[in-house]
Amino acid sequence: MKLLKDIGEFGLIKRIAEAEKIFDKEVIVGIGDDTAVLKYKKDCYLLLTTDILVENIHFDKKATPFQIGWKALAVNLSDIAAMGGIPKYGLVSLGLKKETSINFVDELYQGIRSLAKKFKVKILGGDTVSSPRTVINIALTGEVEKKYLTLRNGAKIGNKIYVTGILGGSISGKHLSFIPRVKEARYLVKNFHPTAMIDISDGLLADLKRVCERSKLGARIYQKKIPLSKEVSLEDALTAGEDFELLFSLSRKYAHLAKSSKVHITQIGEITKKGIVLLDEKGKNVPLSKEGFNHFR
Amino acid sequence: MKLLKDIGEFGLIKRIAEAEKIFDKEVIVGIGDDTAVLKYKKDCYLLLTTDILVENIHFDKKATPFQIGWKALAVNLSDIAAMGGIPKYGLVSLGLKKETSINFVDELYQGIRSLAKKFKVKILGGDTVSSPRTVINIALTGEVEKKYLTLRNGAKIGNKIYVTGILGGSISGKHLSFIPRVKEARYLVKNFHPTAMIDISDGLLADLKRVCERSKLGARIYQKKIPLSKEVSLEDALTAGEDFELLFSLSRKYAHLAKSSKVHITQIGEITKKGIVLLDEKGKNVPLSKEGFNHFR
Repeated sequence: MKLLKDIGEFGLIKRIAEAEKIFDKEVIVGIGDDTAVLKYKKDCYLLLTTDILVENIHFDKKATPFQIGWKALAVNLSDIAAMGGIPKYGLVSLGLKKETSINFVDELYQGIRSLAKKFKVKILGGDTVSSPRTVINIALTGEVEKKYLTLRNGAKIGNKIYVTGILGGSISGKHLSFIPRVKEARYLVKNFHPTAMIDISDGLLADLKRVCERSKLGARIYQKKIPLSKEVSLEDALTAGEDFELLFSLSRKYAHLAKSSKVHITQIGEITKKGIVLLDEKGKNVPLSKEGFNHFR
Repeated sequence: MKLLKDIGEFGLIKRIAEAEKIFDKEVIVGIGDDTAVLKYKKDCYLLLTTDILVENIHFDKKATPFQIGWKALAVNLSDIAAMGGIPKYGLVSLGLKKETSINFVDELYQGIRSLAKKFKVKILGGDTVSSPRTVINIALTGEVEKKYLTLRNGAKIGNKIYVTGILGGSISGKHLSFIPRVKEARYLVKNFHPTAMIDISDGLLADLKRVCERSKLGARIYQKKIPLSKEVSLEDALTAGEDFELLFSLSRKYAHLAKSSKVHITQIGEITKKGIVLLDEKGKNVPLSKEGFNHFR
């Protein structure tokens, strides 16, 4: 009998996506990007995304309820950011133990609300149930002007590859308090029109692979160019999940302009015809094995 | 220290709702109805809802994966129905044990898809993570013509109160395979313009109380008129959750027309000025204590 741990998270997602053939004139993007994209207003699309966090998997006993609430919204905001969009409305599903203190719930909501306020997101309800483990799901809508919508599949050969911020920080706890790159994404789509974009949720290599697969191209990245957190190894930065920085590609024209970016971005490589290649300081191929954080393994 | 089980699910929802003051011209209804309601197209509103199911709470080991998937979508469809709306797009969040067989996941998705197909709902993605207990959250959008939107707060004194179908069936397992009343709701809003509507998810009394609270009125219901499942006591029908029938009120004009309804509905009482009163066969007050299924207690 085949188990989930045999095919892994990515195998499962592929399996689900392949079974879902969407034929609907209202659906611009179904499964396969950071959010779903639907027809909406004359000039903009509706974005829909959802993320679930489970106790002992996405947060442990050391996480404060404030951090849990913050993170549950932040991971969704990061998905909206990766489309170039503006987050709008959230629905919160909470599974809580009967012995949970009211104080815990209040603090968790404070975590959600303080981040929501920062990005003008409104929480419009949800569902609250009893659960033997704490679990929180947030579903979030957003909108994006048609001209700013940025998918994973638009990278072109010769495009330069960039990341925002610094990688590897999630290991030292950043994943519980990160600021999703919504403002940075808006700056990027308005000024540099990225050809493809994704948020780094499963590690640089895994998410770069997604962009390459969707764009049907490859990538070459340079070890020495990758912006690393202190105390973090290159391998951690490449494969650790939950950095929630943006990974994107720019055409040559905008790559030139991007040198004066007001947002902290670093060029780390370029889009190629096929295969993902990492070059070390001497220009030699680094063998790649791990693919980033994979649930079920 | 105050615990969740001290204030219960309804206390918690009230606490959350009171903290969320929504001032947003795009939001027609925030917290406090079966779904959130947003501005959308010229003639219709966008509906948003979400529901989470947790192993051993909403389904047990006897439930097949097909039933779990079916129920996860059905409870959301029921919320869209209660607004008079048409369900559209779903996002599925799944928390699964590592030892889950691929077969389990495939069957669970078959449960979701067969119900989705029945109501022309498209699944546009979601999130899949590892979890020590099976948990599934579905977020669903819908749309409703402005003229058909039916809220909980519109009941008027003298309105007749109705339910669809037969109550109490959830106890014998119906809650795992019920057909959400989407078609019935559409028939009702088109033909009888209900003044208020809700789906019975926490028991007739608890959900009637919600309509009365939101409409700032009361209700009188007649024991002998309540349509009961065989093998189910009156108390079960009044207080058992997960019937997922519709409870609604009609003005006198439409109550007259409703006698020839093509959908199975039963008049069970009327809206009054205040208080919820249940009358037995002899017209005597039945003392009411329980309020229906309440998580955390």
